[in-house]
Amino acid sequence: MKFAACIEYDGSPFYGWQRLSHGPTVQGHVEQALSRVAAETVSVVCAGRTDSGVHGIGQVIHFETSATRPLRGWLFGTNAHLPDSVAMRWIQPVADDFHARFSARARRYRYIILNRQARPALLHQRVYWQHGELDTESMHLAAQALLGEQDFSSFRAAGCQARHANRDMQAITVSREGDFIYLDLVANAFLHHMVRNIAGSLLMVGAGERPVEWIAELLALRDRKQAGMTAPASGLYFVHVDYPEVFGLPTTYTLPYYNF
Amino acid sequence: MKFAACIEYDGSPFYGWQRLSHGPTVQGHVEQALSRVAAETVSVVCAGRTDSGVHGIGQVIHFETSATRPLRGWLFGTNAHLPDSVAMRWIQPVADDFHARFSARARRYRYIILNRQARPALLHQRVYWQHGELDTESMHLAAQALLGEQDFSSFRAAGCQARHANRDMQAITVSREGDFIYLDLVANAFLHHMVRNIAGSLLMVGAGERPVEWIAELLALRDRKQAGMTAPASGLYFVHVDYPEVFGLPTTYTLPYYNF
Repeated sequence: MKFAACIEYDGSPFYGWQRLSHGPTVQGHVEQALSRVAAETVSVVCAGRTDSGVHGIGQVIHFETSATRPLRGWLFGTNAHLPDSVAMRWIQPVADDFHARFSARARRYRYIILNRQARPALLHQRVYWQHGELDTESMHLAAQALLGEQDFSSFRAAGCQARHANRDMQAITVSREGDFIYLDLVANAFLHHMVRNIAGSLLMVGAGERPVEWIAELLALRDRKQAGMTAPASGLYFVHVDYPEVFGLPTTYTLPYYNF
Repeated sequence: MKFAACIEYDGSPFYGWQRLSHGPTVQGHVEQALSRVAAETVSVVCAGRTDSGVHGIGQVIHFETSATRPLRGWLFGTNAHLPDSVAMRWIQPVADDFHARFSARARRYRYIILNRQARPALLHQRVYWQHGELDTESMHLAAQALLGEQDFSSFRAAGCQARHANRDMQAITVSREGDFIYLDLVANAFLHHMVRNIAGSLLMVGAGERPVEWIAELLALRDRKQAGMTAPASGLYFVHVDYPEVFGLPTTYTLPYYNF
């Protein structure tokens, strides 16, 4: 029996998604909880691995098991065995040919910047704080250069293991709501650190340290050494994974939103 | 020199607002940070003490000091000395007759309930979770019985030290946004545990365990033993304090809002 499930997590206490022998990870906890509910060893495959400190709202996994439990039993049982900072949001049976990673058509990420004089208290480790005023309009304009199928080598981590750097950016916007700035991205897939490297360069445009055209120039250079910093993990949320409708998984999602 | 300042805090790591000798409190940290910036002992007075686990978005304090620093120095200096879960949002000089508690005309609180099958992960300790579906409309209707100047003895903590239980409830609403239910209250002042006791009783109405009219009946009984549980502190936010305009303090505020 194959299942798909959605996992929400606060990334701050973990060494990222991927199971490790030397530290707590989200995958490690999810597999441990599922194995207890199934009373057998369960391994999971995720839609996209996230780094240490990155948050998940709509991470999708699949796993196979011979255990039969009511869906409510899987959900409540797994959540009872997970630490407070990880929760399963939904679970449902899925066709045998579903694969959390390979069936995905697109991934959605949101990067959240708190742009005010005072640092966050309630949202410590849940946003990236910048106290100097940022020009959101310039950031949005600059980001439009990244639309379409492009070579994102300039925004790729040094250790990235992808075979090539071509990705199809389907949507990218920068918007402001009060003191919060939201960078929203939709692409078929993302390179390692790609969102955080894009955010880091857009932050330089927003601060007036680089002109709007700089992002297009960076992209054309295909050279990671030219781009801005890798923005901190604390602002990054893995929001949603789009799959073909035939799999019958939830297609609606909500972007993580804070206000105060 | 007298100053007013606004404090934001995640209540979960603290033994409430009020300074204690035996545990960490918000007041204790704020006084310690201000004393370091002022290079002299600073004591603060707050608009309303909050209990252990209750969050602050717009707590207001006043204090007197002989130290002179630029406003930016007070703000950044204090925030540099505060723990991650406490931040000063603004600070400004204020007239000598201002008193954070006695000058207040009204206090605003929001109680946040996450109403979905899966418990929160990212909002652990920042909302109260109820998995059974709640009828928001019934809760809102029932709450209207609490409007106006009334004797709130039925919603008063056993140890409450107020001289009388009369409070003027100026607005009370229950609304839903996706999986989040918001209980918003404005009153001249609140009794100890008043919001959490009201929330606890409204939760019983929302779950269908009591009829809409029960809240009006409870209020008339003036008997704490008849009401519902004291809802957990994790859902409660002290949002804003209204002062007479003559003091020139910020009059706008945003209600804490989450979405995902």
